[in-house]
Amino acid sequence: MSQGEFDIIHKYFDRPAESEQGVTLGIGDDCAILDIPDGYQLVVTTDSLVSGVHFFEDVDPYRLGYKALAVNLSDIAAMGAEAKWVSLAITLPSIDEHWLSQFCRGFFALADKYNVRLIGGDTTKGPLSITVSAKGIVKRGQALRRDGARPGDLLCVSGVLGDGGLGLAVKLFSESCDKINNKQVFIDALELTEPRLILAQQLASYASSCIDISDGLSQDLIHILNKSQCHAQIELEKLPFSAAMKQQIQQGHISQLQAWQFAVSGGDDYELLFTVPAEKMPAFQQLISTQLANSELVCYQIGKITAIPASTQKESIEFSVDSKQAITFTHLQQPMDLDKAGWDHFK
Amino acid sequence: MSQGEFDIIHKYFDRPAESEQGVTLGIGDDCAILDIPDGYQLVVTTDSLVSGVHFFEDVDPYRLGYKALAVNLSDIAAMGAEAKWVSLAITLPSIDEHWLSQFCRGFFALADKYNVRLIGGDTTKGPLSITVSAKGIVKRGQALRRDGARPGDLLCVSGVLGDGGLGLAVKLFSESCDKINNKQVFIDALELTEPRLILAQQLASYASSCIDISDGLSQDLIHILNKSQCHAQIELEKLPFSAAMKQQIQQGHISQLQAWQFAVSGGDDYELLFTVPAEKMPAFQQLISTQLANSELVCYQIGKITAIPASTQKESIEFSVDSKQAITFTHLQQPMDLDKAGWDHFK
Repeated sequence: MSQGEFDIIHKYFDRPAESEQGVTLGIGDDCAILDIPDGYQLVVTTDSLVSGVHFFEDVDPYRLGYKALAVNLSDIAAMGAEAKWVSLAITLPSIDEHWLSQFCRGFFALADKYNVRLIGGDTTKGPLSITVSAKGIVKRGQALRRDGARPGDLLCVSGVLGDGGLGLAVKLFSESCDKINNKQVFIDALELTEPRLILAQQLASYASSCIDISDGLSQDLIHILNKSQCHAQIELEKLPFSAAMKQQIQQGHISQLQAWQFAVSGGDDYELLFTVPAEKMPAFQQLISTQLANSELVCYQIGKITAIPASTQKESIEFSVDSKQAITFTHLQQPMDLDKAGWDHFK
Repeated sequence: MSQGEFDIIHKYFDRPAESEQGVTLGIGDDCAILDIPDGYQLVVTTDSLVSGVHFFEDVDPYRLGYKALAVNLSDIAAMGAEAKWVSLAITLPSIDEHWLSQFCRGFFALADKYNVRLIGGDTTKGPLSITVSAKGIVKRGQALRRDGARPGDLLCVSGVLGDGGLGLAVKLFSESCDKINNKQVFIDALELTEPRLILAQQLASYASSCIDISDGLSQDLIHILNKSQCHAQIELEKLPFSAAMKQQIQQGHISQLQAWQFAVSGGDDYELLFTVPAEKMPAFQQLISTQLANSELVCYQIGKITAIPASTQKESIEFSVDSKQAITFTHLQQPMDLDKAGWDHFK
């Protein structure tokens, strides 16, 4: 965007530093220069959002700016890290000042909430897409990885499930969803997701593994199970739902089975899915219960990590778990095959 | 790219670690975890390349992969830093395995040369574009910024100028350029640019400011002059040209004036433009002359930094230098107005 690129950067993105936050040099040089405190490690994630693929072309730019940052901060949270800095590469078909100012309002609303500093990026001309790269810090050796789960660990989530998935369904299949009421609650869950950064830093002392739920509980759990070489059991009656979701079930707008399916496969919840060793659970529950005033710290135990049955173990050191067998669903102790239920009933 | 995204990442991007290079955790978790040695700072840059804007749609994918990384590593070099890690966000219209394997061959050829590790990224479906975010380390306080130039400092470049700009002209205006011979030399200069990382680490002890020439010597110099609040003088007879460019001039395919114009405004040279305090120049020249075997360390002095005339100084603490007055061109001590020459004669 040769004409006006520097003006745009200056006008929208180059904001005065309220606090240094480890930024020796921000926007306006070949690189940003950042200070990592001694004894800490850097964590880095990158996510792209492409128009027509990850968001609707007529998306509210405030919500797009917010979510482009939120999905990246959610990855930082999933490492048990503190979010610090972010780079933003934005490709725009043209300069629409109203659109851009709304985009920035959403982006910076979230950045300011968590004291995250924009330290650089690129502004180019082309089909609308956004690539955000977020950076955080974590005490050396304390990051929550996907490979730390062990049989016997308890499986937990950081909030209610399924609302994001139902929000997407409401937007994609409005006719099939005409009975759903309070639609905006679900659309908000989809578009204004809250990265669990406050919980994340508490988790470092308790959790053995962690991931954020972007593709769906089931699919993201498989990543933990693959890296940790374990299986898992999920107790469907323990899956947490929002008041709005419970209302849909009670009023018969969706079935209990469909609600479970949204929780398990819906995606876009951006809650943390983590494992806690059983012996640490009492202390973790104590932490949660004494800080219930902070809604960021509501967590639910939904199942447990199990060992891979000896009969199905392979000889190789590490192998991909069988995704059909790796997760067992139960309802009141009875096995239940959730694969046969759900999503396609809804269309 | 829901279907096959993980396969693609595994097949093309997740390469076995040959050395740790400070990577505690690479591809395959929510974030990469990186170790910054105590006493060092992190430098970060991000550049996007969009199809039809930054490269031709039929570009050789090897060269695209190479250049997407090269322009980012050039920014790391411009900080006097050591390149360490890189994230790659690639948006593809479809999976073309041949294209992707060639892209990766170009990308990793350069990454391997400088021992840079791919530590994460994102693979999405959409109009072809690439966003690379490179990270490097530099001793605390030693980074070469744009704001360190002072009047009397000598202005230097790390290699010949104008070849990249002529390469672009050859591709854009093939008819007007039909007389140019050895076209491939100029196209190679445009597409297979060499990031000056080896020189960069030597520069930290000598240079007072540095930038890489992406938009053209003149425009990039203005960034140094703005940040450093100085003016500059460029001696045209000192501008360094390649043997191929000299041949074009000698054979009358382009005029001397046009060659200067390519050097000053052409862009895409990706040489380092830096300033050296006069008292450090003898030691710097000693370093260069004793290491001439390494062609990375060929540098040319092309002018000097001057003070802003008292008459044009503003009262504000920092202001934008007047781009028409900030750079003075001379030829054999005589002032010369290069703005009136060049590029548009060529079309």
